[in-house]
Amino acid sequence: MKICWFNENKLGLVEGDSILDVSAALKVLPAQSYPATTKGDPLIANLARVQDEIRKLAPGARKIPVKGARLLSPVAAPTKIIGVPVNYIKHVEEAASQTDVFPLRHQQGTVIDQGFFLKSNSSLVGPSEGVKLRFPDRRNDHEMELGIIIGKYANNIPEEGALDYIAGYCIALDMVVRGTEDRSFRKSIDTYSVAGPWMVTADEIPDPGHLKFSLAVNGEVRQASNTQFLLLNIQKQISFASQWYALHPGDIIMTGTCEGVSRVLPGDVMHCEIEKIGEMDVKVEAA
Amino acid sequence: MKICWFNENKLGLVEGDSILDVSAALKVLPAQSYPATTKGDPLIANLARVQDEIRKLAPGARKIPVKGARLLSPVAAPTKIIGVPVNYIKHVEEAASQTDVFPLRHQQGTVIDQGFFLKSNSSLVGPSEGVKLRFPDRRNDHEMELGIIIGKYANNIPEEGALDYIAGYCIALDMVVRGTEDRSFRKSIDTYSVAGPWMVTADEIPDPGHLKFSLAVNGEVRQASNTQFLLLNIQKQISFASQWYALHPGDIIMTGTCEGVSRVLPGDVMHCEIEKIGEMDVKVEAA
Repeated sequence: MKICWFNENKLGLVEGDSILDVSAALKVLPAQSYPATTKGDPLIANLARVQDEIRKLAPGARKIPVKGARLLSPVAAPTKIIGVPVNYIKHVEEAASQTDVFPLRHQQGTVIDQGFFLKSNSSLVGPSEGVKLRFPDRRNDHEMELGIIIGKYANNIPEEGALDYIAGYCIALDMVVRGTEDRSFRKSIDTYSVAGPWMVTADEIPDPGHLKFSLAVNGEVRQASNTQFLLLNIQKQISFASQWYALHPGDIIMTGTCEGVSRVLPGDVMHCEIEKIGEMDVKVEAA
Repeated sequence: MKICWFNENKLGLVEGDSILDVSAALKVLPAQSYPATTKGDPLIANLARVQDEIRKLAPGARKIPVKGARLLSPVAAPTKIIGVPVNYIKHVEEAASQTDVFPLRHQQGTVIDQGFFLKSNSSLVGPSEGVKLRFPDRRNDHEMELGIIIGKYANNIPEEGALDYIAGYCIALDMVVRGTEDRSFRKSIDTYSVAGPWMVTADEIPDPGHLKFSLAVNGEVRQASNTQFLLLNIQKQISFASQWYALHPGDIIMTGTCEGVSRVLPGDVMHCEIEKIGEMDVKVEAA
């Protein structure tokens, strides 16, 4: 099932070129309390129940074309957004060859040695919102990758069975401005975490370790790879992260980018595709 | 006004040695919607209204001793938790003298050069919850500091008037495990962001730039300084952060730690004090 948020926080079921408005399915969510008694995104935490309701509503739902919809992040309220550095060998090599652009620390040790990093929740947007460069005179890069959406509480879990903790997948753009500042700062600018165009539930992608993906800027392909080249695969990522901190429903892991990372400028359009997920266009503007 | 969350998410007004249960004041908050239409913590975003209601409720409120209460984080749902590195000159010097413990990058450039960093929302706890070490054999350090709680949306704001964006203050413990991993990973372990014991509203601390603070482990003072020694003062921190990303009500800035950072072990108790805010004890355990 492909589930999206669109327009004014409406819930959508994507079928072919159409979005069915299934916002009424949200009524099965438990009443919101403040403070919340558990962490995590309410929709993702109650996904099976919402999917049952979506199936009931779909036949009678209002339909709009995907092209006419403003697509938002498929996770509305993640507890955290996690990034995975240096996770494709050819990206590691390109970073090593450009020491003026990539800080030295980017090049020391494996992804396990370096650990994961954080991106701010306030930086999260959907594809329709675009990327807004605050420092357009500095080098701002696209890093495109597979996004994992965690489905349930995961703490100290083994690799085996780790895929069972995934609710679904999306396309992720981990935008960054290069410089001396801490990575979690340079990657947390408003709009620098793009997730979209929707969440494909995990049942539709039994093997996330073999997905082709690509990014083109203004029609020119810049990044193209396959998740089979991940150094730390998805099972290992979830297990490793959960040794450090608990994962909560709706936590997003941006699984690492491949080679071809390059600069974007105001006016550019990034076109992203991942096999079995879909495609999305994201505009770049000056903030 | 000193406002806390305590026991099972009850809202408290702290008066001397007592907490008044003013949970009924939460009824003035707008109904919670999901997805939320604005970012930020609902209590902090509506603080003035809640304070008016607290004043009405206080005379008839049930009272319990502070000592008997389980104090939680004074912000229930921050959008982000920001850390400020290398912000006291004597801490910079101690880091430079211990290159085996503090990574080289900790010592390159000013706080502006290094930028700020992120801590995960899932790491946030109150003093009663304690700090749980996942890797007790590695060096785990306390970094105690003044915590700022942002009161309203702040984007690209100047230094002048920046204090007007503060809702209140708290004690902050920015816990860290040393190692090669990204700072935002090593500081985001569950329980590694302690805020407490309550929020003191900004009107009670007109000058946050002159506050004495100290931390003792098992009764032995390890850190003791004054916010007058901040390299980047609080106005500058808020202005600088807001050039990079919007700040939202309830965002927490941990303003930087002073010298005396040292290791803690399971069984230790950290006692923290900040002038005009209060004091809190935080236990250290193995996870």
